[in-house]
Amino acid sequence: MIYLDNAATTKLEDCAFEAMLPFLKDEYGNASAVYEIARRSKKAVFNARKQCGKLIGASPSEIFFTSGGTESDNWALIGAYDSYRRKAGADGDANSNLLSAGCGHIITTAIEHHAIIRTAEYLKSCGVSVTFLKPDSEGFISPEQVVSALREDTFLVSVMTANNEIGTIEPVCEIADAVHALRKDILVHTDSVQAFGQIHMDGFAGHVDLLSASAHKLGGPKGCGLLFIRDGLKVAPFIRGGMQESGRRAGTENIPGIVGFGAASEKACLVLDEKIKKEVMLRDELLSRILNMDGVIINGPYEEKGCSKRLPGNISVCVTDIEGESALIMLDREEICASSGSACASGAREPSHVLKAIGRSDDESKGSLRFTISEHNTSDEIKRAAEVIADVVCRLRSGRKHL
Amino acid sequence: MIYLDNAATTKLEDCAFEAMLPFLKDEYGNASAVYEIARRSKKAVFNARKQCGKLIGASPSEIFFTSGGTESDNWALIGAYDSYRRKAGADGDANSNLLSAGCGHIITTAIEHHAIIRTAEYLKSCGVSVTFLKPDSEGFISPEQVVSALREDTFLVSVMTANNEIGTIEPVCEIADAVHALRKDILVHTDSVQAFGQIHMDGFAGHVDLLSASAHKLGGPKGCGLLFIRDGLKVAPFIRGGMQESGRRAGTENIPGIVGFGAASEKACLVLDEKIKKEVMLRDELLSRILNMDGVIINGPYEEKGCSKRLPGNISVCVTDIEGESALIMLDREEICASSGSACASGAREPSHVLKAIGRSDDESKGSLRFTISEHNTSDEIKRAAEVIADVVCRLRSGRKHL
Repeated sequence: MIYLDNAATTKLEDCAFEAMLPFLKDEYGNASAVYEIARRSKKAVFNARKQCGKLIGASPSEIFFTSGGTESDNWALIGAYDSYRRKAGADGDANSNLLSAGCGHIITTAIEHHAIIRTAEYLKSCGVSVTFLKPDSEGFISPEQVVSALREDTFLVSVMTANNEIGTIEPVCEIADAVHALRKDILVHTDSVQAFGQIHMDGFAGHVDLLSASAHKLGGPKGCGLLFIRDGLKVAPFIRGGMQESGRRAGTENIPGIVGFGAASEKACLVLDEKIKKEVMLRDELLSRILNMDGVIINGPYEEKGCSKRLPGNISVCVTDIEGESALIMLDREEICASSGSACASGAREPSHVLKAIGRSDDESKGSLRFTISEHNTSDEIKRAAEVIADVVCRLRSGRKHL
Repeated sequence: MIYLDNAATTKLEDCAFEAMLPFLKDEYGNASAVYEIARRSKKAVFNARKQCGKLIGASPSEIFFTSGGTESDNWALIGAYDSYRRKAGADGDANSNLLSAGCGHIITTAIEHHAIIRTAEYLKSCGVSVTFLKPDSEGFISPEQVVSALREDTFLVSVMTANNEIGTIEPVCEIADAVHALRKDILVHTDSVQAFGQIHMDGFAGHVDLLSASAHKLGGPKGCGLLFIRDGLKVAPFIRGGMQESGRRAGTENIPGIVGFGAASEKACLVLDEKIKKEVMLRDELLSRILNMDGVIINGPYEEKGCSKRLPGNISVCVTDIEGESALIMLDREEICASSGSACASGAREPSHVLKAIGRSDDESKGSLRFTISEHNTSDEIKRAAEVIADVVCRLRSGRKHL
């Protein structure tokens, strides 16, 4: 099997599995209890907080573990909204009726992950105004665009660090700085699910207020994520109950998941330069072979030998005269795992909102393919994949001619 | 180590670990993708849905996986509220401003887990009226009590299946039937975190509308839970984003966690009679020895040789003239893991809201101790624990005399 869908999920790193193992077996204490086995769980969670925080320059007290990137995104938006209306309402009186308070305004983009888009739409149904900024043809959002969308009642800006479909890396720190230079009270959130542990983000904690990440996108386990909340910031909890995570995220801690996330983050920190170098090399190799075919356009910025504008492992293309879904099925038969750019919503295939936002027609979007490479892929795999892709595209096109 | 805190968390069952192992290693596909490795993940999730559903007589399509019992409880309450105000508002127009809609009323109890209490308090801050029913001195809530608290604008009733501190088993199916006999439109939810896989609940899906459960309380992994939603019921999502879980709970599925939950549920189904019998036997043995000491009162109903009123493995007592927390520390030194009835809220020890609700004074609550037994405990462990407990109580009391 040649796995080229690392943006969907990654294989668990051996170091993460090894770190999790004791906590799946004998070290099963509930971190909230007082006895020795529980104290060891608590310690392990603290250690993971340090390991994860290091990737973005955050202190352990700023890292809050969640069930994944989607929960973190929901928390960031809904928590910010709850805090805003509490402030806008009765001076923080938790028991007062807040429904009469102003509803505020948030700014996000048209190319966010659905975890942001759907949550923003939900807030809209609660009365919040939402601006979805349109990116340029390569998927970029500029700080100027964000600044000119600010309103007096804006309380949150959320712009993703890197796009999951087309790999575009947004100027998030510049956006945060531009917003904060004008308005310190506006929270800046970034969904870093696709970027955390994939590109250098050392300084992010010094710029943004909130940041989401997911363990299973960087070799950690599924079912674990984090929300970075800048020290001293008031953001309402999203999941309420016990006093876990300093009283900000209730629910018994997923110790094995958290420990695995920590170990994967630590490894990502250590190997990042090397990993990026290898992924960029493999990406450029596969991309140049794919672009050799007729009728292929690249989605997102073209960047050779670098990863300042585009995620190192990401290739997204639109191939004319084919159906992406059919190509994926044929690739699967050759044991190649890839993805189409288009989101599959409950059976009804709608064209990807990201490709639409950068100006692709519905027809172009139908032929979209995404290959996302990890450092565990090999040059031989890339060569074989390139041959199979060319063959599949050729067969699909000739099949269409015969119709 | 003698582990008597199985209500806090349980050791992962071997069968659950074995079932999870492949999905932690090579079977890492994202269940939403189209290729073979992803299809195997999807199949495994479906199988787990069947295994978990069987414990309460639910069909797989009624089981929605979450990150744990706390998330499930939050979802039940907030989802019901969102659906209610959408209905009460603009006839389900998702984009209309709903803040002007009626806020409604929910009924719950004063002895729920904090996942319910804190969420109900949050809804109160959103304008919802909340009735917290007071239990009798053994912790029971009666169907009559619930019925007489109903209001025209009541949209949800939430009563736990069994209490986590004092083990009282509530007449939840009778409560649901009584409510539905009068008002079919009111949703009845039950937090079954402490009961799922611990007592027979085969028919629950035929009575309640919503039910929460957690994997790590029955030998499954931490970080996984479920919400049962009766077929055809409209309950708004709580975590929004991708189309996972039939579009009702977004976020990449925690496949290993879900598979482990399924395996643990299947085992619980198979061994339930035997497990209950052993736990009741050990519970009665330890309880009779503890009650032999002076100045001990039992919390919750006293029930010998049975588990119709009280969870099979639960012992909760108040011991006069000792501090529960000190006893736990001394028990820990003897490698016995137990818990105090009192919740420890951010350093400041407040008396347990459950013990308060059944009429214990603050002074009595201070000396509360909880021992929760699993079928993996042995008679020898129970004998040794009884001796150590008696010794610890004796030392604490004599230490106090010398002050």
